[in-house]
Amino acid sequence: MTNRIYFDNAATTALDKDVLEVMLPYLTTHFGNPSSIYSYGRETRLAVENARKSVAKILGVHPAEIFFTSGGTESTNTAITAAVRDLGCTRIITSPLEHHATMHCTEALRKRGEVQLEYVNILPDGHIDLEDLASRLAQTGPKTLVTLMHANNEIGNLVEVEKVGALAEQYGAIFHCDTVQTVGHYPLDLKKLKAHFISAAGHKFHGPKGIGMLYINEAIKIHPLIEGGAQERNMRAGTENIYGIVGFARALEIATENYETERKHIQEIKDHMARRLESEFDQVRFNGDTRGRSLYTVLSVSFPETEKTEMLLFNLDIHHICVSGGSACSSGASVGSHVIHALYPEENIVPLRFSFSKYNTIQEADKVIDTLKTLL
Amino acid sequence: MTNRIYFDNAATTALDKDVLEVMLPYLTTHFGNPSSIYSYGRETRLAVENARKSVAKILGVHPAEIFFTSGGTESTNTAITAAVRDLGCTRIITSPLEHHATMHCTEALRKRGEVQLEYVNILPDGHIDLEDLASRLAQTGPKTLVTLMHANNEIGNLVEVEKVGALAEQYGAIFHCDTVQTVGHYPLDLKKLKAHFISAAGHKFHGPKGIGMLYINEAIKIHPLIEGGAQERNMRAGTENIYGIVGFARALEIATENYETERKHIQEIKDHMARRLESEFDQVRFNGDTRGRSLYTVLSVSFPETEKTEMLLFNLDIHHICVSGGSACSSGASVGSHVIHALYPEENIVPLRFSFSKYNTIQEADKVIDTLKTLL
Repeated sequence: MTNRIYFDNAATTALDKDVLEVMLPYLTTHFGNPSSIYSYGRETRLAVENARKSVAKILGVHPAEIFFTSGGTESTNTAITAAVRDLGCTRIITSPLEHHATMHCTEALRKRGEVQLEYVNILPDGHIDLEDLASRLAQTGPKTLVTLMHANNEIGNLVEVEKVGALAEQYGAIFHCDTVQTVGHYPLDLKKLKAHFISAAGHKFHGPKGIGMLYINEAIKIHPLIEGGAQERNMRAGTENIYGIVGFARALEIATENYETERKHIQEIKDHMARRLESEFDQVRFNGDTRGRSLYTVLSVSFPETEKTEMLLFNLDIHHICVSGGSACSSGASVGSHVIHALYPEENIVPLRFSFSKYNTIQEADKVIDTLKTLL
Repeated sequence: MTNRIYFDNAATTALDKDVLEVMLPYLTTHFGNPSSIYSYGRETRLAVENARKSVAKILGVHPAEIFFTSGGTESTNTAITAAVRDLGCTRIITSPLEHHATMHCTEALRKRGEVQLEYVNILPDGHIDLEDLASRLAQTGPKTLVTLMHANNEIGNLVEVEKVGALAEQYGAIFHCDTVQTVGHYPLDLKKLKAHFISAAGHKFHGPKGIGMLYINEAIKIHPLIEGGAQERNMRAGTENIYGIVGFARALEIATENYETERKHIQEIKDHMARRLESEFDQVRFNGDTRGRSLYTVLSVSFPETEKTEMLLFNLDIHHICVSGGSACSSGASVGSHVIHALYPEENIVPLRFSFSKYNTIQEADKVIDTLKTLL
């Protein structure tokens, strides 16, 4: 196992040991139900509220605007559903490059006749066409939800979300931003972002799986997606995943403390890998705006489809190299990537997504390149 | 902390050390995304599928009928919402004694005009009036969902769910059974139960928080509550909470292996406590069918409201005794118990719920009684 190279950090990341350490007391001694009134419950209530305060402080918002969920997908579903059911949005503008959580949730609402659904134009480099978004928003008509991701999980493109937020504000639209790939990787200032909702998932930045966060701007009043007990100030019912919540907050704290160092380290790996890929392989193509507005954690490339490239993921796996084709979700379903297909519909290509974390090294990148050379 | 007495196991239970042990590898080494196609993802995929098989075997059903969720509340919301949206139920029959997950989810559907909502009569001992249920089901009319809990979390009454299942079958109704208090405490045979859905939560039987299960009968085809990736065979999107899933299955295995011994042990504590309460306190009253069809884990009593009893929970807390008034959820909201109020609407009483686990002892019960004597 020691020789395994894990280059799929956009799918999920290893739990940081320091995060596990703060979680363990809540997996052993401190198991009380935070909703209980006795002191044993108050201990865990305090842990949950301290976690909330810490997350809120990092994101520049009020703790009452932070809600813990079971993950990014639940957060996104909650925001989109509430925008339609509780805030009166009958039109959704999204993009064809969104994560399945957004794509399938918006499609389900359209199929049930609750909304009309529009897709903003995508530019050749994979960026959102902001002029098209503006002209769609300028149309008088139904109350609109704009739901766009901050960074694309497959090609890494970063959306100018502050411009999207400003457009949404100008035209009175609700804005949900799927920040699952950027919370814990970029210092977000939610006061500037002007989103009404953002979604995050702990396991994308070395926190635990099964825990996510939904930011809801304090001006917004919605009903929960999951009804029941009064947890999360009546916004998300169900006994709190205390160790998950504590772990989420600690992971975000660690990411924030070490942001500059880690970003520099990871960017170097990405740049090195991009340079070597370019110099070693004639036919490699970068997907998206790799050297422009792009996640430092993601490098998406394509090779022309040949007998050798077709089996590339499997052969990399045999060499203990973990790389994904599209996203984890789409690769699991073995249906190819809707993102790559939307961007390059005519081409027979084999996409490879390398995604990096603080635990990766330049040496690993070199090993992957060398392995690719033997395989291709 | 060693002298703390935890008698609130219906709210949440301590994680079994053996459960934590099987979870830890998935919190450290085995962090791969189960949806990934490389071997590192397949390891965790295998863990998830083995957990599913184990749970299915214990419940006497097919693995394809078991879906992991973030908890009992999400499971219940999924079942009830799907019965209305996907199975065409426009009437729901429930009871006024259900958990908030059922109560608030059904109320939300009624408020949105999606269903009519009826409450089955409750007998003086807190049991469901099955004749009333039958006559309601016998009315020709809309397709109906019956949602009733197997055991009441506050008073401990056990519903004759096999009779409810038979009635639902007879009249073509859908039956969701909230088994959150009984999975891991009773050997359920789902083939006999004839429920279309059951809900469970890991943390109620010494498993982890943040993980639950929804059984969906294979004849039933529904859409997910949380849309997104293809996880859980397209029924519950979001990266799997692997260690939660592994822990849920292990906790259920341990509970099943030790069922007879633990039931006997816990029943003795309950019986002992009931006898001593009766002999020491003139004015104590048992809520529900305590010595009849009742959870062996729960003993709910009431004292008349006086200056001394009003502060009872707080004073017990000062003596390091963890006991709840109603459920954890309702006590957190400080609004009293809707269950106790539904059963005894006219009375000024102070309810106390003692709920026991395998980790409790007769000696602890005696200490609690002795403390109550000094307080009252």
